[in-house]
Amino acid sequence: MAIVVGYVATKEGRAALKRAAEECVLRQAKLVVVSSHRGGRDFDADEAMRFEAELRRVEEVLDERGIEHEVRQLVRGNDPADDLIAVAAEVSADFIVIGLRRRSPVGKLFLGSNAQRILLDASCPVLAVKAE
Amino acid sequence: MAIVVGYVATKEGRAALKRAAEECVLRQAKLVVVSSHRGGRDFDADEAMRFEAELRRVEEVLDERGIEHEVRQLVRGNDPADDLIAVAAEVSADFIVIGLRRRSPVGKLFLGSNAQRILLDASCPVLAVKAE
Repeated sequence: MAIVVGYVATKEGRAALKRAAEECVLRQAKLVVVSSHRGGRDFDADEAMRFEAELRRVEEVLDERGIEHEVRQLVRGNDPADDLIAVAAEVSADFIVIGLRRRSPVGKLFLGSNAQRILLDASCPVLAVKAE
Repeated sequence: MAIVVGYVATKEGRAALKRAAEECVLRQAKLVVVSSHRGGRDFDADEAMRFEAELRRVEEVLDERGIEHEVRQLVRGNDPADDLIAVAAEVSADFIVIGLRRRSPVGKLFLGSNAQRILLDASCPVLAVKAE
């Protein structure tokens, strides 16, 4: 059994990673972290560093519990949603974990297109997590 | 700990209920089924009967495992999304489970407004499940 989580260097991405790891511990599932970050406009170097530190801590916890894990760096020019869905299908994921931004009181009424694509097109369940 | 699932008499609603019950068994959590069905256009009597039968089976499994559960029938004229989010906040839900329709190859590119509202506005995580 495997749980797939998308690597995103934001506080939502870190919350998703943390929750995915907890779910792996609960059900003795393998954790597959898919990195489809391409830099650019949304890149936040500080968040990326915090994410890497968080990832190391998560890996330590999984190592301690004897839970298998892997990080896949995909640079195939695909839409991140496609990469995540393809990996989830390949490993027969129990579910995918994604981070979602919290809506501000006057925030937009629509989910981002990546989140919508993953929710609509993944054949497995999707757990959407907010930042703490 | 509690898991909240929205009652919907569709095959997606049944899939969400089944998954929510499995997650309750896994983590010894209470199951709270929120019924905010209002009949009307989308009402399918056959699906409703299948859903009720499914609910009875789920309750039997939870009884056998000694897991607490309750069904809340809410007729407050609220948007179903608001009811679900309010109950989840009240019981400090670990997460909410919702059913999502599978997109057909030529299907629409947007999630329904109820699903989007729950995903955007719930403070807890949301597990979105497709029908089998």
